[in-house]
Amino acid sequence: MKLYDYLPSGNSYKVRLMMSYLGLTYEHIGLDIIKGETQTDGFKAVNPVGQIPLLELSDGRRIAESNAIIYFLVEGTPYWPKNAFDQAKCMQWMFFEQYKHEPAIAVSRFIHHYAMDKRESELPALMKRGYAALDIMEDHLAQNLWFVSCDSGDGRTLADVALYAYTHVAGEGGFDLTRYPNITAWLDRFADHPKHILITDVPQ
Amino acid sequence: MKLYDYLPSGNSYKVRLMMSYLGLTYEHIGLDIIKGETQTDGFKAVNPVGQIPLLELSDGRRIAESNAIIYFLVEGTPYWPKNAFDQAKCMQWMFFEQYKHEPAIAVSRFIHHYAMDKRESELPALMKRGYAALDIMEDHLAQNLWFVSCDSGDGRTLADVALYAYTHVAGEGGFDLTRYPNITAWLDRFADHPKHILITDVPQ
Repeated sequence: MKLYDYLPSGNSYKVRLMMSYLGLTYEHIGLDIIKGETQTDGFKAVNPVGQIPLLELSDGRRIAESNAIIYFLVEGTPYWPKNAFDQAKCMQWMFFEQYKHEPAIAVSRFIHHYAMDKRESELPALMKRGYAALDIMEDHLAQNLWFVSCDSGDGRTLADVALYAYTHVAGEGGFDLTRYPNITAWLDRFADHPKHILITDVPQ
Repeated sequence: MKLYDYLPSGNSYKVRLMMSYLGLTYEHIGLDIIKGETQTDGFKAVNPVGQIPLLELSDGRRIAESNAIIYFLVEGTPYWPKNAFDQAKCMQWMFFEQYKHEPAIAVSRFIHHYAMDKRESELPALMKRGYAALDIMEDHLAQNLWFVSCDSGDGRTLADVALYAYTHVAGEGGFDLTRYPNITAWLDRFADHPKHILITDVPQ
């Protein structure tokens, strides 16, 4: 398999994390989104949406969207619940992540890293939305160790992988995670896994 | 089952469409988002995110997020592909819908209906994003009858249901669909189904 990737991307990190958990090997193809390497005609012929991560299978077929890729990888593993209700709850949290969480927290982090000169004015609205998402997570984690109950593995599922990716670097987007003791404890619990990798790691 | 719903919502319509396809009956609980009925303490005790649609099963368990709900309903039916790759491609389009399509097209429609006095200035950026999403769909449909190949039913899958919901009312958000012959043909193809319902229908 080939993974088209940008190393600082939390969305790409989800895929690298799952690959590490599952012991899968792959060719890592780094693209620099800041230099526009995902917006070239060449890459858009590979993924018309012009986004990483993109997974290419050995037969050439491709899957885009980080949460769709990790969903593809996880079937039949301890990270995907066995019953339909728990699977749907995983999806509920993954859609929450892409709709409420990532567009606020990942975008705030991007602006802090690369675009403070042009986009700083967007931050107040993004911070408000991002804190609202973190509030929802904090309330859930006050009652639960993980986002979805799972009857295998240590309890973590794809929902935790999806939400960990940008939550653990929310501080880089200006979010104060010390307000959130339950999220902080969950981040520590999540990182305590024998196959854990950092966002900057590329195991192959 | 109970469906907490707001009739004009495209996200809720996805669930009503799948219920109709599958011949499922349910209690319909209408909430008016314009009157703030999803933001009350009472409803937030039911769904902390304060959003419709929300599906409540007969045992009281609940699923939020439109695409997670229809995913829950569809397993083992002709609207969900049988193999893992095609399932992941469905999810790819459903995450595209919630990340690239709905936040532009559904929000433009909302502003046109309810918030032109306060939010008209958001429209140019939303239109640009919405047309970019429609361009991606048009290109895909130039080569394909449906969004994901499916080996059962008439070819449509959950991906088509998810994308139909707000695309067919994109005109209400100011989008000119006459620019898109392939999308227009797909909309007609989609509506040609014996169990099709309109967005204003509540079959029970």
